[in-house]
Amino acid sequence: MNGIILSIGDELVLGQTVDTNSAWISVKLASLGVRVVQHVTVADQLDAIRDAIIAAAELCDVLVISGGLGPTADDVTRQALAAAMNVDMELNGGWLATIEQFFQQRGRSMPEINRVQAMIPRGAKCIENTCGTAAGIAARLARTGGGTCQVYVVPGVPSEMKAMLELSVLPVLAERLGGAKILSRVLHTFGLGESAVAEMLGDLMDRRRNPSVGTTVSNGLVSIRVNSSAASSERAREMLEQTAAACRVALGDLIFGEGDQSLASAVGELLMKNRDRVAQMATAESCTGGLLAKMLTDTPGSSRYFRGGWVTYANESKIQWLGVPAELIEKHGAVSEPVVLAMADGAKKIAGADYALAISGVAGPDGGTPEKPVGTVCIALAGATGSRAMTFKFPGTRDWIRNRSALMALSMLRYDILGRVMPR
Amino acid sequence: MNGIILSIGDELVLGQTVDTNSAWISVKLASLGVRVVQHVTVADQLDAIRDAIIAAAELCDVLVISGGLGPTADDVTRQALAAAMNVDMELNGGWLATIEQFFQQRGRSMPEINRVQAMIPRGAKCIENTCGTAAGIAARLARTGGGTCQVYVVPGVPSEMKAMLELSVLPVLAERLGGAKILSRVLHTFGLGESAVAEMLGDLMDRRRNPSVGTTVSNGLVSIRVNSSAASSERAREMLEQTAAACRVALGDLIFGEGDQSLASAVGELLMKNRDRVAQMATAESCTGGLLAKMLTDTPGSSRYFRGGWVTYANESKIQWLGVPAELIEKHGAVSEPVVLAMADGAKKIAGADYALAISGVAGPDGGTPEKPVGTVCIALAGATGSRAMTFKFPGTRDWIRNRSALMALSMLRYDILGRVMPR
Repeated sequence: MNGIILSIGDELVLGQTVDTNSAWISVKLASLGVRVVQHVTVADQLDAIRDAIIAAAELCDVLVISGGLGPTADDVTRQALAAAMNVDMELNGGWLATIEQFFQQRGRSMPEINRVQAMIPRGAKCIENTCGTAAGIAARLARTGGGTCQVYVVPGVPSEMKAMLELSVLPVLAERLGGAKILSRVLHTFGLGESAVAEMLGDLMDRRRNPSVGTTVSNGLVSIRVNSSAASSERAREMLEQTAAACRVALGDLIFGEGDQSLASAVGELLMKNRDRVAQMATAESCTGGLLAKMLTDTPGSSRYFRGGWVTYANESKIQWLGVPAELIEKHGAVSEPVVLAMADGAKKIAGADYALAISGVAGPDGGTPEKPVGTVCIALAGATGSRAMTFKFPGTRDWIRNRSALMALSMLRYDILGRVMPR
Repeated sequence: MNGIILSIGDELVLGQTVDTNSAWISVKLASLGVRVVQHVTVADQLDAIRDAIIAAAELCDVLVISGGLGPTADDVTRQALAAAMNVDMELNGGWLATIEQFFQQRGRSMPEINRVQAMIPRGAKCIENTCGTAAGIAARLARTGGGTCQVYVVPGVPSEMKAMLELSVLPVLAERLGGAKILSRVLHTFGLGESAVAEMLGDLMDRRRNPSVGTTVSNGLVSIRVNSSAASSERAREMLEQTAAACRVALGDLIFGEGDQSLASAVGELLMKNRDRVAQMATAESCTGGLLAKMLTDTPGSSRYFRGGWVTYANESKIQWLGVPAELIEKHGAVSEPVVLAMADGAKKIAGADYALAISGVAGPDGGTPEKPVGTVCIALAGATGSRAMTFKFPGTRDWIRNRSALMALSMLRYDILGRVMPR
């Protein structure tokens, strides 16, 4: 069973608003076993909407349309659906009464322009809106190739759209489809490129496989998506578990977490699992300028293991706050392994922590030299068994270099706690 | 001239990732006078992509496709474009050499699977990728109804997509279209809500006005978008300048910058404009956990005015690193005006800075009390003329509260340097 999501709105095609509805609706439909094959967005124009409805109906069994149900002249989704169905519009007396009541309860009489919100194509049904005056619409469109496409029109306002789908559309669909049949899981890795991860996954990534395994790159992480589809939700879950386990075997330590988990929160969990008491950490940052600490404190409850940190952006800060010997900076430069080692050691000692991470690098766009070009970053970890530093050359923009540096520091700590060698 | 944006990816149609690329690309195309009429998203499936390309090409003059250029088996946009063009794929020797060099520079040899990233449809051209190994593709598709559609394929990774369009695609398009005829300017404000800003703008926001003036809220800022449309780019620019100037008159100090400028970089510019020498600042953060320092160091060259900062997440860190009296924390709590004042004073003194900002608050979701619920944030500014603190109650999630806190601290410093009273 295939689904398409059609979003209506000038602000969407003009790029003034990012469409978040389609993703939300897709997740809901997928969980019911509807395979969403397309998202389409068109402007508030009757002909464009009508053509998009007709084209989509030919390609799917369930079409969810959001937007264009307001009372103003630029809201024409109702009319476009009627045109696609080749029928007239008619007034739904029941819903008109509901709208009038909606205004009465607020001590006002219904403005005349709201009357159009009770008009629906002949042969269609109203879907109740518990949050607003726009009725949703349920209709069926015959396909030229035979069969029918079930159409649901819902408001574009996210809160109204979600309420209407949750309360009135998804339960009906779920009953008809007999429960969830497509399940997903996302596993996150850091440290190797997408192609290296794919090589390790091998045949698991075969396109014909079910559950399917795919990779995506986002914010420096390579994530593995496992999608399982089966006749029953139990079977889908079982298959999902098996494939996720196979991915874990193939990738080993490279997987640091799944779902909403970040690399920083995964490190936090390891620190809390420390044998006798929660291990404590601190940070000392130069080029990342607080990003590493920010990532750590994105996680609620990080105060249990994160003492705090220093953003020693100026050389004097490194010297005065962390006790980095001035000679070290003079001799090796602020971006050097001896200096980050001194930063990490200083941070660990002053904070009374078990671990400290220090970062100093050339984030650019200026400040590069032939010897230390933009992207040169030194990272040090001071830990239970001594300190060590590594030097990296990261490509890309300032943002990218800073993001990559902070993630790499977290990864160094993670592998150190795991007692494993970090892959490079 | 019509445009369509086609996004490719299982993660998009499944709703696991929200498509932000299409909105970004739409804004860029609109600025060149290309009217985007549709966004379409399809899964990583050769037939579906091919069909979507053919259908879109019939409806537009410019088709931008993003995604599906990775090296792995699930990336099939290249092949789908070749199928739509009805041609074979061929190896682009020049780009293959570029990929091999990319890996060489990182001390590795190119994995065999990356070879596919140098394959493009016969008759198409490579577009340079300055951030990754996937070449973009430029091609032309003949339409059955006559004419051709210009196709650009760019990576789905937002940073690579943006760099490729900015550097290699948009300039070419702009030249072909005879320069921009729709010009935009974005002015940024912080401190008042969208409706208050709209009231101050008054008639400037009339829907029928050209240049049009609209407001958008994003990341805690209210931005004013001015769109000017005219028969020539000169005229459009002239009209744009006039309306932007009128907005500046209406909003005064509330506007801190425009375009890519951030509140942090605006503060940095004010510090550098200090009379005798560049003023120096420092930060002391608790609940924002480094975010304020991160915002300041997002700006290249911020080392000229930013000494550095402390992330004093634990109470002991506040006491030991910044000299906050332990009694103060005991008596008033870590989230209190006396404590942030002591943090700011300590940071200013230790850093030898002219200004210091300190933040301590309850970012949630836990840690709230009836007296100090989640969202309670104290911010202090230590400056040339003494120190002062304010307490805020911010609504929203942990991320939102942290973001708002850091921005508010910057805003306090900005108004202090300007010698004006901050609106609340």
